[in-house]
Amino acid sequence: MYSFKDDYSEGAHPRLLNALIDSNLEQMKGYGEDDYTREAVELIKQRIKCNDIHVHLFSGGTQTNLTVISAFLRPYEAVISANTGHIFVHETGAIEATGHKVISIEVSDGKLNPAHIKSVLDGHTDEHMVKPKMVYISNPTEIGTIYTKLELEQLSQFCKGNNLFLYLDGARLGSALCSEENDLELSDLVTLVDAFYIGGTKNGALLGEALVICQDSLNENFRFHIKQKGGLLAKGRVLGIQFRELFRDDLYFDLAKHANAMVGLLKTDIRKAGYTFLTHSPSNQIFPIFPNWLIAKLQEKYSFHIWEKIDANRSAIRLVTSWATKEDAVSAFIEDMKNAMK
Amino acid sequence: MYSFKDDYSEGAHPRLLNALIDSNLEQMKGYGEDDYTREAVELIKQRIKCNDIHVHLFSGGTQTNLTVISAFLRPYEAVISANTGHIFVHETGAIEATGHKVISIEVSDGKLNPAHIKSVLDGHTDEHMVKPKMVYISNPTEIGTIYTKLELEQLSQFCKGNNLFLYLDGARLGSALCSEENDLELSDLVTLVDAFYIGGTKNGALLGEALVICQDSLNENFRFHIKQKGGLLAKGRVLGIQFRELFRDDLYFDLAKHANAMVGLLKTDIRKAGYTFLTHSPSNQIFPIFPNWLIAKLQEKYSFHIWEKIDANRSAIRLVTSWATKEDAVSAFIEDMKNAMK
Amino acid sequence: MYSFKDDYSEGAHPRLLNALIDSNLEQMKGYGEDDYTREAVELIKQRIKCNDIHVHLFSGGTQTNLTVISAFLRPYEAVISANTGHIFVHETGAIEATGHKVISIEVSDGKLNPAHIKSVLDGHTDEHMVKPKMVYISNPTEIGTIYTKLELEQLSQFCKGNNLFLYLDGARLGSALCSEENDLELSDLVTLVDAFYIGGTKNGALLGEALVICQDSLNENFRFHIKQKGGLLAKGRVLGIQFRELFRDDLYFDLAKHANAMVGLLKTDIRKAGYTFLTHSPSNQIFPIFPNWLIAKLQEKYSFHIWEKIDANRSAIRLVTSWATKEDAVSAFIEDMKNAMK
Amino acid sequence: MYSFKDDYSEGAHPRLLNALIDSNLEQMKGYGEDDYTREAVELIKQRIKCNDIHVHLFSGGTQTNLTVISAFLRPYEAVISANTGHIFVHETGAIEATGHKVISIEVSDGKLNPAHIKSVLDGHTDEHMVKPKMVYISNPTEIGTIYTKLELEQLSQFCKGNNLFLYLDGARLGSALCSEENDLELSDLVTLVDAFYIGGTKNGALLGEALVICQDSLNENFRFHIKQKGGLLAKGRVLGIQFRELFRDDLYFDLAKHANAMVGLLKTDIRKAGYTFLTHSPSNQIFPIFPNWLIAKLQEKYSFHIWEKIDANRSAIRLVTSWATKEDAVSAFIEDMKNAMK
Repeated sequence: MYSFKDDYSEGAHPRLLNALIDSNLEQMKGYGEDDYTREAVELIKQRIKCNDIHVHLFSGGTQTNLTVISAFLRPYEAVISANTGHIFVHETGAIEATGHKVISIEVSDGKLNPAHIKSVLDGHTDEHMVKPKMVYISNPTEIGTIYTKLELEQLSQFCKGNNLFLYLDGARLGSALCSEENDLELSDLVTLVDAFYIGGTKNGALLGEALVICQDSLNENFRFHIKQKGGLLAKGRVLGIQFRELFRDDLYFDLAKHANAMVGLLKTDIRKAGYTFLTHSPSNQIFPIFPNWLIAKLQEKYSFHIWEKIDANRSAIRLVTSWATKEDAVSAFIEDMKNAMK
Repeated sequence: MYSFKDDYSEGAHPRLLNALIDSNLEQMKGYGEDDYTREAVELIKQRIKCNDIHVHLFSGGTQTNLTVISAFLRPYEAVISANTGHIFVHETGAIEATGHKVISIEVSDGKLNPAHIKSVLDGHTDEHMVKPKMVYISNPTEIGTIYTKLELEQLSQFCKGNNLFLYLDGARLGSALCSEENDLELSDLVTLVDAFYIGGTKNGALLGEALVICQDSLNENFRFHIKQKGGLLAKGRVLGIQFRELFRDDLYFDLAKHANAMVGLLKTDIRKAGYTFLTHSPSNQIFPIFPNWLIAKLQEKYSFHIWEKIDANRSAIRLVTSWATKEDAVSAFIEDMKNAMK
Repeated sequence: MYSFKDDYSEGAHPRLLNALIDSNLEQMKGYGEDDYTREAVELIKQRIKCNDIHVHLFSGGTQTNLTVISAFLRPYEAVISANTGHIFVHETGAIEATGHKVISIEVSDGKLNPAHIKSVLDGHTDEHMVKPKMVYISNPTEIGTIYTKLELEQLSQFCKGNNLFLYLDGARLGSALCSEENDLELSDLVTLVDAFYIGGTKNGALLGEALVICQDSLNENFRFHIKQKGGLLAKGRVLGIQFRELFRDDLYFDLAKHANAMVGLLKTDIRKAGYTFLTHSPSNQIFPIFPNWLIAKLQEKYSFHIWEKIDANRSAIRLVTSWATKEDAVSAFIEDMKNAMK
Repeated sequence: MYSFKDDYSEGAHPRLLNALIDSNLEQMKGYGEDDYTREAVELIKQRIKCNDIHVHLFSGGTQTNLTVISAFLRPYEAVISANTGHIFVHETGAIEATGHKVISIEVSDGKLNPAHIKSVLDGHTDEHMVKPKMVYISNPTEIGTIYTKLELEQLSQFCKGNNLFLYLDGARLGSALCSEENDLELSDLVTLVDAFYIGGTKNGALLGEALVICQDSLNENFRFHIKQKGGLLAKGRVLGIQFRELFRDDLYFDLAKHANAMVGLLKTDIRKAGYTFLTHSPSNQIFPIFPNWLIAKLQEKYSFHIWEKIDANRSAIRLVTSWATKEDAVSAFIEDMKNAMK
């Protein structure tokens, strides 16, 4: 049974494990004040080509999201999200648990644009309603789509013009930035959004997300927020060592490219076989629509999520690749699909 | 410069790292539903000699504390803590951030007894005040003292008689249980407290605490709480693999014994040298009272916390040992102390 | 300028003011433990024909809603509301501020039915999502519609079958119960919902809502919740005296009937004049669709909300009547409308 | 049975009730945007001799406190209070329920001074602890003591120098300002504190507290906070009409003077009779220490709180007077005390 269920089924890229081993007995300060974390932060700043940013390492995405959003907002302020947004659907009300409403917008492609945001602003007029103050987007989105540079520029401009924070959830940012259809660079983000995170857990780390805060004022006393929400690891080195390794050279991007290459193989042959997809996804998650008999057949040897029922006979499934996906497994899947169709 | 500053200066015990490497490319379910976590839970249950408990793995102590306390209490209920308690002092108001008051009791030795709790109950009489509902203790305490079995039995009985939950923070539980003065067994805790956690971060793990919930009713939908507070790691295996290794044999306790042995060497020779201690600590933190000139001298080669000013000429410092403390370093410290005194 | 803007433009019914004056210098216990509150509670129980309920008096609707919802739910649980629901739209995120997600359902008539709720339950499957636990409805709804007994029975049965609390916001309950189309009795509510409130502010009181909790278990330590949320008035008598007066005889219902009669006059003549309505409202708020020129004309002498733009030439306005609405003003409005149309 | 239990046993001063009646059928805007509220705000500004302040009317003290404190603080910030402070003891954890720790300081006279605050600041050093950001004081305190102008100036200066907000709970402010020992004027407060409230409930109103915010920045979007916490009354006029009446002339102060005069009579004769007091209280609450037999005797005809057991034979009781206290009742109490002593 091979799994295309998600991009966190394996451990970490061997280079990260080796780095943990090599540094293991060095004594380091706790709580992210160690040398490795400092180096990781420097490397990330270099990669982003900007020194006026602040980087904090977290253990996971929900932890990052709830800390950022509750830190940036005043009690009566709300965050806007697509109805597919992770914070809206899949975080067990973590944002609301910090006291903030998540205003959702129904979208078909997982992406927000200025018109969406404007409609929310128009509907929030006085102190009897929450005040929308932040826009949350994911890139790639939870359904695999990605933002073009132009789309993000338009959204960014609208947010600035309306005094809204723009926050980008980059749980799979590597895959978006390494997508063939992508025209964004990591360094573009600093001017386009107020904060974003570079996902490590889903791109080669045991755990870890690197939050980048692009404005000094938003970073004020930020470590207090992290500690209060339970996110300050005693052995912060565990995150520092891994991110240092990911950004010492192009490893972070190489891993994402591999994931994209693997999903590309799947996509090409699925398309050739005549199947369509639920969404236009140029990142490491694809949602092919298969007849149910084919799904049942494939489930004998592969595990994946059944995403959505399309009609009586067909469903969309989710296939996810990662840095660890084996090309053999991809080939076998395609072979098995073709054989089943004979 | 050698550090006696804390018990989280190094990485993980090599066996844990090896286990991470050996399992690295196996595909596992996410979010703590993997085989390793299941095994770790089984091993912990066996060690505790009880099947009717529930075990959840967390990434850190504050995360564990805030999740447990907010999960167990109703909005108007409060938790009682010694004024030295970690949740009262060192968690940046994490408990209050979930909506609950921490009622503190001034104590000299870090420990709570029935009389302490009774005085709080007597002072909370109606709906104009919070309702005390939980007692939080640490073993060992934040100042190194430990509870005897009798003390814990008395506290437990009082809590049961007064319908209070008793929760034990075991960030350094290994050191307490392996202390020469200890007469508690891990398996005793199940009947004495409602929940406790077995600290991993400070006893050989990269990160990880194993929460044990001793009552079915308190475990209801508990994973929802973990997820909402940001504590559910995608690669839960990272925790499972480490705890499995710690509890596959006596490793967890062997590591604690080493820490205690090292602190014992320090204690013996410091005492021999004529110095006293701030607290009676039979666990891996000790608080010798040194003349300031000696502290200055030792700081040239060792790092440690200056805990408290005693008078114009003396201060208490904190020395902490761990599974990783080298006997050579301990000997050198003692030697340097003696030399300085000549 | 006469206002049809809302049902809280005037003070209180004179009988309530007189009761405040008559009792003014009697010394009473504070915090709702006075004789008048006790009597009011008794009278409400008699009217509901049930002794096994608990009644608490509040100063306003948002205060009531946020206290009830946060008291009934566990941290990870959520409340379901129509997208028109007051808690979803008009309480500045008060529910989220207590930590709970409000799951909204798009409806056209402001009312929820079992199919709506089922679709939400089907979409919430595991601990990565909030757990829907309560259904919030308003009767009448925020757009004037009311529930039939059958509709409420079906919803109630579904909620019981799925272990969901059903809570009814009765800010304008008098108007619903006294509507010509209504077939519910106040006493029916006890078996149909878990809690509801009888709105006083919008039906003759200076301020005040009477919350009725229909299950003992939900009432446990409820006064702690009220106090913690700031809802326990020192002079609770102010609420008690008014509700005692409203329920000493049929005053509460007589006032609602007057409001309904006044809105009935408006509705009849607006319909006769050929205009339609945005919603089918048998309660004290109606939403006629007028040409914009007529609205502008009427605004010279009357104040009311413009509710929704219908097309380039027409808008729906909201007209609200109350216990205090003068028949003369209603006649004048109709006259002015007719004159404008000539 | 005559009550000296508190200062909220009766209704409102007749002038306030008459004002409610006179204005009853005028149509007014809701939510505190009515003409009466506007006038009340203007009158309060005049009395304070300052236009650059912001006034908001609330229904009660806990509601005011929790709204102000949660509005002014960032999530990781804490408020400092005397251990006698209302927010620390008697609000059922209302402040913590909004997420903030209340740091308490043990005092004997209910008052805070710079040394107290400094000791807290010295103990809060990094992001592992909450950040003290606000000082909460009551004047008069909960045990009847009052601040001198000098004391308040020193505290104010310290707070400004340390970037702390200073907030004054004036539930009984009238009594403090009209005390014979007082040298503060209402208008002094604007420069000394960042916000304070003028208590109405305990000085002649049915309900109502007037919050004064002395800095523009702290007032930003403040009405959103009020609404979210459930404090925005639909018929805000109820508060506006009463405060307008209290501040149209000297009524607010006349009522406080009456309360002080009545307590003065009690104090003088109790002292003459040879009894001492628990605290030095120049405001409308006194705490005489009586033999238990005398307390029992007085309880036959008077109700009051037994505050604290002093020794086996004596207890301190609390006697409270108000605008409504009858001189006859005071005389009778003294007479009965004397007779009992014969």
